Amino acid sequence: MSTPLKLHEDRLFPAEPGIRALACELYADVADLPIISPHGHTDPAWFAHDEPFGNATELLLHPDHYVFRMLYSQGIALEDLGIGGGGADPRAAWRIFAENYHLFRATPSRMWLDWVFAEAFGIEVRLDAGTADLYFDTITEKLQQDDFRPRALFDRYGIEVLATTESPLDPLDHHRAIRGSGWGGRVITAYRPDPVVDPEFEGFADNLRAFGDLTGEDTLSWPGYLAAHRQRREYFAAMGATSTDHGHPTAATANLSDADAAALFERVKHGGASAADAELFRAQMLTEMAAMSVDDGLVMQIHPGSFRNHNHQLFAGFGRDMGADIPTRTDYVQALKPLLDRFGNEVGLSIILFTLDESAYARELAPLAGHYPCLKLGPAWWFHDSPEGMRRFRQMTTETAGFYNTVGFNDDTRAFLSIPARHDVARRVDCGFLAQLVAEHRIEDWEAAEVARDLAYTLAKRAYRL
Amino acid sequence: MSTPLKLHEDRLFPAEPGIRALACELYADVADLPIISPHGHTDPAWFAHDEPFGNATELLLHPDHYVFRMLYSQGIALEDLGIGGGGADPRAAWRIFAENYHLFRATPSRMWLDWVFAEAFGIEVRLDAGTADLYFDTITEKLQQDDFRPRALFDRYGIEVLATTESPLDPLDHHRAIRGSGWGGRVITAYRPDPVVDPEFEGFADNLRAFGDLTGEDTLSWPGYLAAHRQRREYFAAMGATSTDHGHPTAATANLSDADAAALFERVKHGGASAADAELFRAQMLTEMAAMSVDDGLVMQIHPGSFRNHNHQLFAGFGRDMGADIPTRTDYVQALKPLLDRFGNEVGLSIILFTLDESAYARELAPLAGHYPCLKLGPAWWFHDSPEGMRRFRQMTTETAGFYNTVGFNDDTRAFLSIPARHDVARRVDCGFLAQLVAEHRIEDWEAAEVARDLAYTLAKRAYRL
Amino acid sequence: MSTPLKLHEDRLFPAEPGIRALACELYADVADLPIISPHGHTDPAWFAHDEPFGNATELLLHPDHYVFRMLYSQGIALEDLGIGGGGADPRAAWRIFAENYHLFRATPSRMWLDWVFAEAFGIEVRLDAGTADLYFDTITEKLQQDDFRPRALFDRYGIEVLATTESPLDPLDHHRAIRGSGWGGRVITAYRPDPVVDPEFEGFADNLRAFGDLTGEDTLSWPGYLAAHRQRREYFAAMGATSTDHGHPTAATANLSDADAAALFERVKHGGASAADAELFRAQMLTEMAAMSVDDGLVMQIHPGSFRNHNHQLFAGFGRDMGADIPTRTDYVQALKPLLDRFGNEVGLSIILFTLDESAYARELAPLAGHYPCLKLGPAWWFHDSPEGMRRFRQMTTETAGFYNTVGFNDDTRAFLSIPARHDVARRVDCGFLAQLVAEHRIEDWEAAEVARDLAYTLAKRAYRL
Repeated sequence: MSTPLKLHEDRLFPAEPGIRALACELYADVADLPIISPHGHTDPAWFAHDEPFGNATELLLHPDHYVFRMLYSQGIALEDLGIGGGGADPRAAWRIFAENYHLFRATPSRMWLDWVFAEAFGIEVRLDAGTADLYFDTITEKLQQDDFRPRALFDRYGIEVLATTESPLDPLDHHRAIRGSGWGGRVITAYRPDPVVDPEFEGFADNLRAFGDLTGEDTLSWPGYLAAHRQRREYFAAMGATSTDHGHPTAATANLSDADAAALFERVKHGGASAADAELFRAQMLTEMAAMSVDDGLVMQIHPGSFRNHNHQLFAGFGRDMGADIPTRTDYVQALKPLLDRFGNEVGLSIILFTLDESAYARELAPLAGHYPCLKLGPAWWFHDSPEGMRRFRQMTTETAGFYNTVGFNDDTRAFLSIPARHDVARRVDCGFLAQLVAEHRIEDWEAAEVARDLAYTLAKRAYRL
Repeated sequence: MSTPLKLHEDRLFPAEPGIRALACELYADVADLPIISPHGHTDPAWFAHDEPFGNATELLLHPDHYVFRMLYSQGIALEDLGIGGGGADPRAAWRIFAENYHLFRATPSRMWLDWVFAEAFGIEVRLDAGTADLYFDTITEKLQQDDFRPRALFDRYGIEVLATTESPLDPLDHHRAIRGSGWGGRVITAYRPDPVVDPEFEGFADNLRAFGDLTGEDTLSWPGYLAAHRQRREYFAAMGATSTDHGHPTAATANLSDADAAALFERVKHGGASAADAELFRAQMLTEMAAMSVDDGLVMQIHPGSFRNHNHQLFAGFGRDMGADIPTRTDYVQALKPLLDRFGNEVGLSIILFTLDESAYARELAPLAGHYPCLKLGPAWWFHDSPEGMRRFRQMTTETAGFYNTVGFNDDTRAFLSIPARHDVARRVDCGFLAQLVAEHRIEDWEAAEVARDLAYTLAKRAYRL
Repeated sequence: MSTPLKLHEDRLFPAEPGIRALACELYADVADLPIISPHGHTDPAWFAHDEPFGNATELLLHPDHYVFRMLYSQGIALEDLGIGGGGADPRAAWRIFAENYHLFRATPSRMWLDWVFAEAFGIEVRLDAGTADLYFDTITEKLQQDDFRPRALFDRYGIEVLATTESPLDPLDHHRAIRGSGWGGRVITAYRPDPVVDPEFEGFADNLRAFGDLTGEDTLSWPGYLAAHRQRREYFAAMGATSTDHGHPTAATANLSDADAAALFERVKHGGASAADAELFRAQMLTEMAAMSVDDGLVMQIHPGSFRNHNHQLFAGFGRDMGADIPTRTDYVQALKPLLDRFGNEVGLSIILFTLDESAYARELAPLAGHYPCLKLGPAWWFHDSPEGMRRFRQMTTETAGFYNTVGFNDDTRAFLSIPARHDVARRVDCGFLAQLVAEHRIEDWEAAEVARDLAYTLAKRAYRL
């Protein structure tokens, strides 16, 4: 007995009829705006080669740590899902997922996936044990069709621009191929230097050497190391990049003298740095990156506060990105001060701050962004990229930072097929929030309409200089 | 001029008529489910002896620190309430309470008490100065009737199972008496070893000696001490226990070598441990308790983050549990790592985490429970066991941990008469939350109905292995 | 094309019609109650001299750091607004403000200003680039009329009492003048000793000397310094003060022996104190101030947790209060313990706690205020003095502290013209909150009406002993 799958047209709007009517009206005006995806983790190879995606499990289950972390939390072995090699049958893995789909009730994964099932694949029954095979077969078959290839989906989805994220060590071959292909889709890169900036990153010392090989700079000297960054940033910009991205454990910044910075670099460059030196080096590098951004105009994104690979057994067995990154309390006020003391009043500099610690929204982030010209607030991130999370973001930042110190939506995803679903959730939640403001006579309806378009489209373009 | 007391049948449901109708429907289906009370602080002597309770003041005022802390905060002396001996007239104390009942507006105490007044005692006017004596007399009289004895109330309340909480030093005579009495009520114990685990607990060194006397183990040696725990856990399990409970100032865990743990035990066992050693010993003991749980299957509960006896004058004069325990900021991500590094992936282990620091819900607890197989989230606790507190719990945990990494409701109370009121509040608030999800088309109505039953009944049974 | 400006009579009430109707009814009863303004930063010179205010820019833009911080955050130079001298044309500055008024959508500044525009000045079109001159001219003209002078506005606004805030070094000439003027308005002072209590305050050592000159006490000795405080407190009380106010970076308190306190004073009195000594001195002084309050009955206000002058370039160029104060995480449980250990149970002592860290509301502040007789909670403060901020305050404090451990509303403002707007927002939001409680059958309608009046009027009078 399968149950029907149908996305309700009023989903995510507040239930009170007056507010809902306002939300619907606001949403109608932004629902079909092009998608600006200024930060995410899709694979540029998809768009370079335009090969068909694999089967349902490879596409929707294996790469999605939101999904398999929930299954794992309920005692399902990753091996049984075919994660980490092992060779579990994709159909068997899919069945496990289907049988446990109730675990996702009221999670954003459920909303995104249902959209993919219904809208992208046209499936009309809900996923459960009884429909697992139907799903697996339908999805896997459709993926072989030309109109499910990456470029076709990109075009069908109305994506105006899509940014991927690469390491400085990446040769950007795929991006070069995309640009040389004659295809009109705008896929750009972003500069994410963690592998050569974080002394605790796996293989840091080797990465530094590779950084030198790639750039021809003496990356084992402090000036050469900085020069290599400048060179790669320039190359990334030539491959379309308008931003950098920094995924640090904390938001710490530092402003050492050049001599102290050089001495610190000497201590960390061979690997095995002390925790304090590693933290200080990352901190100093945020300020160095800001200095370069003042020069080259790349927008800086800081994504701090994730305790990566918290589950050490899983990390040993399966590596990074296994759903075991856990947010931590994150300070911004003390942490950012060294950088802000130096560059906080640079009107040309733009730094977009993210957080996994919602207690910082109203206390620290909105007051900082509502004052410093260089600071803007990124949208609700990761675990908070959800209807309740987005509402809290607006409720806790708007009164101090306004709408215009925020930057629209990031889908921040590798799950390419769900990108429209994610933007749609953000647009619906924002329209619901604005509708409530109108209903409570806190803004006018025409203002809400203007803000709705700004949040859905304009602000992201402007903030990321796209 | 007394005002009528009438519990509205729609109380606590969202006011929007569409959501309310959905909530009513969901609630109708769970309102009369049996009560699972897997964690609380009722006195097993009540059920062993089945003696009548005393008067209104002794039953409802003296043991309820929620109630007298509020009166105290407004300048009413505890002595005037007859707390801490002193011998104030119970009726006079009750009158003070009645005159100040307005202080409790919009607090959960008020809701619980009104339920007890209206439903348990059938009183039809509100408590105030003018009705104080009517209340005192009505309640005190009824308490002498057979149908107000503990076992009769237990049966009338539809309690399927009720757990109390005892120290390892407790001989469990009452529990043995209950089990031998022929009465069908299921009252079980839970293992709360703080008095012999926390070096800062009053009389710790004496407690260790008593622990040895009781078990015949050499509890002044590390191996003997651990063996004593194992023995008592086994005995508690034989008296029905399915869980342990740990009320530590922080969630710190440690994973020392056996030699280091033994050396630490030597330093703390005679009392007078340094604060750092006391903290480390508690931390190590959480990991030891987890090890034992892996073996014996007892579910672990961790209730951290209360600064006990914050008011030192009150503690000196009146002792523990005087309403002066204050929550503190509580970290889980770093704190639990040593334990999780060792046992985090044990599918057979079950640890239920509680918090008094709501900022950890979305940031730390939901991400942890949404990943680690051994972790589940306990319900909103203590000061947060309230309509707003429960809503925040669901709003901040569901999107990341789902419903199925939570464990249903705990009443956690000593106020036996209000147990149904507390479960009723939880059921109403959860149904209201689910109704909103349905109204916003985030889950289907039939899913909400299933989840409502799980939250009200099934999850608690399953999580506590009842 | 200008758009009409009209304040909706239902603004800020919840949109659900049933709740809104209840809110309207509650509000109708409190809308016109006199204003109690027990804490704020208006200038007593206004009421002493009763001179007309200047032009629109001087009155509404220059002193309002909420306003110009938002403009600054979007890259507008303070110089262009005429802030910090520089001599920008007031009309040109106003035009910049008008062109950027959309930045304030959904902020409290927008609500307060629109009230001032519509209600105080009778303007009927919205502020934007096209109406900038109309606004500037209308406001500037009206300010020259007699009925826009400070005393006339005070009377028209129905202010029953208004407290300003002065340093102990202030001779209180204006207050003396007001009292001697024959005008009936009750304008009182409050004792804010930060300049002579905080060793990190600009000019601290000089301030101590001036403190001695003013009082005739030997303020470079510990006993003389304390005696000077006692003397000034007495004088402030004679000028109407019923409260003191303490704006410290943290809520730390200390309880040193007299010898240790005296030794600490020796270390800090010449300026250049270490950060630790400065913090300890402030901490000790909170306890000393509490001791004096036990004696003289002045209510203590503690406003902790602002990182002042975070933007050091701006501080160097423009000085204090430039919109660059940023909230920080604030602990209360450990911080207040030394003071509470000594005075926590003094029924005659009253300490009103504020926070910029909302995570402390439910976790620390409500539990503390719901227990200690000397503690009460101040209203949502500064960045949180806004509809969402006030709702969160009630949602997170009421269930544990009740309404009667809170103190009504503070406008805390220097923006005199907006004082009625601010009280009106608080009254509307509180009525909306109460209406929801009634609609959810958590309190009765007649209780809500009583509480609404208490929150709007009675509690502030009582808490501040006015």
